[in-house]
Amino acid sequence: MGMTTEERLAALEARLRTAEDHLAILNLLNSYGPLVDSATAREAGALWVEGGGYSFGLNEGGTRRLEAPDEIAGMYSWPGHLDLVNTGCAHLTATPKITVAGDDAQAVGYSFVVLRAKNEQEGDRWYLWRAAINHWTLRRTPDGWRIVERTNRTLNGSEESHALMRKVAAI
Amino acid sequence: MGMTTEERLAALEARLRTAEDHLAILNLLNSYGPLVDSATAREAGALWVEGGGYSFGLNEGGTRRLEAPDEIAGMYSWPGHLDLVNTGCAHLTATPKITVAGDDAQAVGYSFVVLRAKNEQEGDRWYLWRAAINHWTLRRTPDGWRIVERTNRTLNGSEESHALMRKVAAI
Amino acid sequence: MGMTTEERLAALEARLRTAEDHLAILNLLNSYGPLVDSATAREAGALWVEGGGYSFGLNEGGTRRLEAPDEIAGMYSWPGHLDLVNTGCAHLTATPKITVAGDDAQAVGYSFVVLRAKNEQEGDRWYLWRAAINHWTLRRTPDGWRIVERTNRTLNGSEESHALMRKVAAI
Repeated sequence: MGMTTEERLAALEARLRTAEDHLAILNLLNSYGPLVDSATAREAGALWVEGGGYSFGLNEGGTRRLEAPDEIAGMYSWPGHLDLVNTGCAHLTATPKITVAGDDAQAVGYSFVVLRAKNEQEGDRWYLWRAAINHWTLRRTPDGWRIVERTNRTLNGSEESHALMRKVAAI
Repeated sequence: MGMTTEERLAALEARLRTAEDHLAILNLLNSYGPLVDSATAREAGALWVEGGGYSFGLNEGGTRRLEAPDEIAGMYSWPGHLDLVNTGCAHLTATPKITVAGDDAQAVGYSFVVLRAKNEQEGDRWYLWRAAINHWTLRRTPDGWRIVERTNRTLNGSEESHALMRKVAAI
Repeated sequence: MGMTTEERLAALEARLRTAEDHLAILNLLNSYGPLVDSATAREAGALWVEGGGYSFGLNEGGTRRLEAPDEIAGMYSWPGHLDLVNTGCAHLTATPKITVAGDDAQAVGYSFVVLRAKNEQEGDRWYLWRAAINHWTLRRTPDGWRIVERTNRTLNGSEESHALMRKVAAI
């Protein structure tokens, strides 16, 4: 409606960048699992900006935040993690809702840790060792999109897990 | 090949809108789980157009169709649903095939209900309480994309479930 | 910065095609499950280029490569496969990392076979019968994107499975 060629080109360029950002973030989040499940620790830590964080609940109660890149990369060398890697596991990121606003983005979605069973009763199958809800904030950097903060809470019916889920309506 | 600038701009605008629609529908469908798993009932019902429907199979045989928004939102306040919410669950929408045709769209894909186990034998893990195939029809509205009809059948080897799956070749 | 209208249109057309390719490949890979789980064998085989291949590990050790379309379509008529179809199953392709380079593309991601339990202890639930990592190469054809090679290894902690996972950093 009276837009000039210049205005239409500028609008297309801005809209296309947002769609490309959505797909780039999908690729970033879908890189996480194969990296950590093969103990490719440094590259996994580099999915975050420096100083970024990963907060998760502890089995014994309470939460913990690890800082990128070193503490996060370090976790993927923990004996408990290497035990998962050598058993056979998938840190699965289910496709989240992703919203992009300029150089910032947010995502809300589920994640699962699928682990190979190693006992006689279950035989040769896999099971859901963990199931969680996640909220990610992300930022455009000169090297592409990176995670700023990932907050992860297991699906145990807690108010805290439900509050993370409800962020999906606000992003 | 002889296209004018005007024709190229119009073609780009139309193609980009289709790609944006695909991503918007992905976001819509990936909002469903976190809303219903936190008993955010009204917002879940509002993912459908008014008068839209959700048809699913009943455990006792036969099928049921609930109408949007009230009957669908109402289901997420049923005691059986709140029991899932308080136990810890994920209504997981696996990424479906999505096709957009103007102001209408269709999608075919799997969905799962992941539930926390609460018995001594299984300890602290989650399991697949439901697994189903879905066909969605969707429509562009002034408020964005909304679901018109969702048809869901559990994966029990039935001809009806296979017929829903085969729609993936036709959309 | 001094780009002409022609240059901006050409850049938009190329970038948009890459985004459309990403979404088309997502649709292609998400068609696989519903086709094979309904024993729609010929259409499943046609997701590959002629002469393309599907390589997977064998339970008894070693690997096998089936060639498209006939050997791959043939597998979905094997009695073992039809038994899965009639029990109720989902060959689930988790959203992979996808990268497009002109008329070629690659993807790395997880896949799962979800199967209905049919024993008294487990009752009416589903379980993970298989969990695997995949690397796909894909090619643009006159009929759209098709799979060239799919390499699939189960998640058993093997070096071979970890090597496939690490490809996610290289695509």
